[in-house]
Amino acid sequence: MASTANQVEDLKGSFVFPASASHWTRKHLIGLEELSAEEINAILDTAEAFAAYTARDGKKVPALQGKVVFNLFFENSTRTRTSFSLAAKRLLADVQDFSASTSSLSKGESFIDTAKNLEAMGADILVVRHSTPGAPHLLTRHVGCSIVNAGDGAHEHPTQGLLDLLTIRKHKGKIDGLTVGLVGDISHSRVARSNIWGLQKLGAKVILCGPPTLLPRGFEKLGCEVAYNLDEILPRLDVINVLRIQFERDTKSVFPSVSEYFRLFGVTAARLARSRPDLLLLAPGPINRGVELTPEVADGPQSVILDQVTNGLAVRQAALALVAGRAG
Amino acid sequence: MASTANQVEDLKGSFVFPASASHWTRKHLIGLEELSAEEINAILDTAEAFAAYTARDGKKVPALQGKVVFNLFFENSTRTRTSFSLAAKRLLADVQDFSASTSSLSKGESFIDTAKNLEAMGADILVVRHSTPGAPHLLTRHVGCSIVNAGDGAHEHPTQGLLDLLTIRKHKGKIDGLTVGLVGDISHSRVARSNIWGLQKLGAKVILCGPPTLLPRGFEKLGCEVAYNLDEILPRLDVINVLRIQFERDTKSVFPSVSEYFRLFGVTAARLARSRPDLLLLAPGPINRGVELTPEVADGPQSVILDQVTNGLAVRQAALALVAGRAG
Amino acid sequence: MASTANQVEDLKGSFVFPASASHWTRKHLIGLEELSAEEINAILDTAEAFAAYTARDGKKVPALQGKVVFNLFFENSTRTRTSFSLAAKRLLADVQDFSASTSSLSKGESFIDTAKNLEAMGADILVVRHSTPGAPHLLTRHVGCSIVNAGDGAHEHPTQGLLDLLTIRKHKGKIDGLTVGLVGDISHSRVARSNIWGLQKLGAKVILCGPPTLLPRGFEKLGCEVAYNLDEILPRLDVINVLRIQFERDTKSVFPSVSEYFRLFGVTAARLARSRPDLLLLAPGPINRGVELTPEVADGPQSVILDQVTNGLAVRQAALALVAGRAG
Repeated sequence: MASTANQVEDLKGSFVFPASASHWTRKHLIGLEELSAEEINAILDTAEAFAAYTARDGKKVPALQGKVVFNLFFENSTRTRTSFSLAAKRLLADVQDFSASTSSLSKGESFIDTAKNLEAMGADILVVRHSTPGAPHLLTRHVGCSIVNAGDGAHEHPTQGLLDLLTIRKHKGKIDGLTVGLVGDISHSRVARSNIWGLQKLGAKVILCGPPTLLPRGFEKLGCEVAYNLDEILPRLDVINVLRIQFERDTKSVFPSVSEYFRLFGVTAARLARSRPDLLLLAPGPINRGVELTPEVADGPQSVILDQVTNGLAVRQAALALVAGRAG
Repeated sequence: MASTANQVEDLKGSFVFPASASHWTRKHLIGLEELSAEEINAILDTAEAFAAYTARDGKKVPALQGKVVFNLFFENSTRTRTSFSLAAKRLLADVQDFSASTSSLSKGESFIDTAKNLEAMGADILVVRHSTPGAPHLLTRHVGCSIVNAGDGAHEHPTQGLLDLLTIRKHKGKIDGLTVGLVGDISHSRVARSNIWGLQKLGAKVILCGPPTLLPRGFEKLGCEVAYNLDEILPRLDVINVLRIQFERDTKSVFPSVSEYFRLFGVTAARLARSRPDLLLLAPGPINRGVELTPEVADGPQSVILDQVTNGLAVRQAALALVAGRAG
Repeated sequence: MASTANQVEDLKGSFVFPASASHWTRKHLIGLEELSAEEINAILDTAEAFAAYTARDGKKVPALQGKVVFNLFFENSTRTRTSFSLAAKRLLADVQDFSASTSSLSKGESFIDTAKNLEAMGADILVVRHSTPGAPHLLTRHVGCSIVNAGDGAHEHPTQGLLDLLTIRKHKGKIDGLTVGLVGDISHSRVARSNIWGLQKLGAKVILCGPPTLLPRGFEKLGCEVAYNLDEILPRLDVINVLRIQFERDTKSVFPSVSEYFRLFGVTAARLARSRPDLLLLAPGPINRGVELTPEVADGPQSVILDQVTNGLAVRQAALALVAGRAG
């Protein structure tokens, strides 16, 4: 076994976790609400280290060699699932998809039984996407393996929030003191909630903006400013995060017409001309071109949409490695 | 090439097949009916060695390195397929899923053509799930690679039977001389048939129990005792294996009502109180809580349901390694 | 890192690209129409070297170690996708399937956005299947990674054409000077088009044969002979490539009846008796037994249908390695 052991030793030796990674002691990643600024920075710093390592050496880090990661998805999300799979493979884990039909959603116990079965098959980490808020947290009380929330209803989507934070930090050099606008369907958005928690913990000011039907009363309590007119707040923003209208959900009762939405909240070149020249534009994909933003804006110089995708991989590598206790 | 060759040598050297594995000389695993007690023990012993190796070292065994395993599933079975995939990956095989639509079932030749195509793509082992009894056996006459039956109609599900045997042997220390009850839908159950053959070959007494519509005349010929009253036989059992009611199949004509079934055959704490204190309870998943057994029984101290899942992985590792001739 | 680097060095050292591989300098493989005879031979020679290496050593070649290959399939094709996956795994690439629903087809931009997202996730090669002719070519203008066409509408299916060429060359020892008949639905066949370009560039004479509704005017311009009577041309053929009737497409308007087609164009033992004794029979799968050819012909001594499948893997290994610049 000597040669193999040495080889792993060598590979491990060549990737160095940042010192801040030691702030991470959790077994699960459920949401940004419960994390401290130090814990968030532990993930962001580790992600940055992974990204630099990949860019420099293109090499894999055997942080999860011999470990089994399951993608347990009760909602379709090819992109997020694929990103987690690639992240796990970069860490040399075995990855297995387990896409449950939505029919199982109605049976609370069967959801737990499924997770227990995967644990019995040797799962070390379950990456869980579920339409019910709290489902990943529920699993932490029933299984012994690590749980990573890949989106639970309108609650949280922590790795999306973290990749947004990483993208902002890379381009702006900091997050503390920035003013960040989240625009669109705040009400149904787990991405918005994870962004709100993460941004505020790292010292940013958050302005939420959208039509009243998609931005109900109550969000001020989270510490955010609430606005209904994009043109009024746009000049104050360092960063705008354009949330996607989720047409796949039932939006009819709250969403009158695409053209009216686009006229009031669509991000266009004309609108950007009235914003700060160094405004950074984020949008979690897949984007609806011509609804939330125009193609020229999506592909323009202020857009970092594809950077977000690349950073997503690094953030997921960091999340998987940290919950597995590999930095300690 | 020296370093790689040595590495494999080293890894191989560290896993030792049990002496009894030499009793296995077959190229295929189709059912337990045709196996001798020695052959069954060869698989169980090898599975136990794999389980111990995994628990001790967490390491992979390169028994199938460079080999290609196809999951050729004509019926959905995420759990069985996943278990085979993980087992193959632990042996360093390349695993590829090939899920055929059920529409191909009607074309006998196309089924064989599909298998021939996979062989031409370099398949070493085809793991086959099919709704037609005998389909895996048919393939052994048309392709040169190994066939492992992952369930064929109501005929056999050998790896499920073997994992049940392994679970019983681990907990009871033996199989010979035990009295094992199989309860539920015997008629449509390939799991029952594989259990009947395996248990009897290893010296256990088998009692079949269920409503007459699900336990037709004729099973006595297989050497089993047949009973229609669970409460009468329960005190005699060392092991009870609670078969699943397969609601996904057409059960209406033979299955009057869930509540009546539960009243007569459901395994409850009250019933267990009248059984032997060391009764071992098995149930092939996914279980229907509240139909075949209550949640408190499923999660109780006599239940080894999740152990079965873990043993399933080891049994499938053993089956794949043995049919590939890796113990010789 | 020394041991790992050496190991890869060793593995690389043991596979030698043929000298002719240096003729390949392209980043993409879109079709055979634009390739020179030298470029086609570069792929065929490399494929033959891979096939020999696999047959001899069964070993993997780390030509794509650390690279990410995406199967981006907008049409179902389990066989082609599986063949690409296995080819990529033999080169130690990470392979990821990304099956888009056909509903995305209508949104031109979303197709490009999807590809850009995969590139942002680190894709090195996108293997693209799409129902629209030109879709893979379109992507070469929008992403930085390599594109391999896995079939685009009725335009081209270059790896199928190349595996047909390789199969002919292996069995006949040459392609130059042969007379090859393509029989069946020429009109809708990307396989026919890739064969026409490839065969003619390598010096073969091509005769197209089928009912007028499936073989419209205009194909003479490509340099082929056009015939409507199979029995008349059969004695002149060195090779017959029996194209599949694509019943999954809308064939009603052009395809009157299966029995009439079979009577006029079905390849039977009686017909083969009137052909050259050394006639080589190819058919891209999946075949419709009893429509394009009889079972006895499909399984007969002149058939190399399963050889084609095996050669397909080698051709795809060659295509992936060459577009990644691994031969230079």
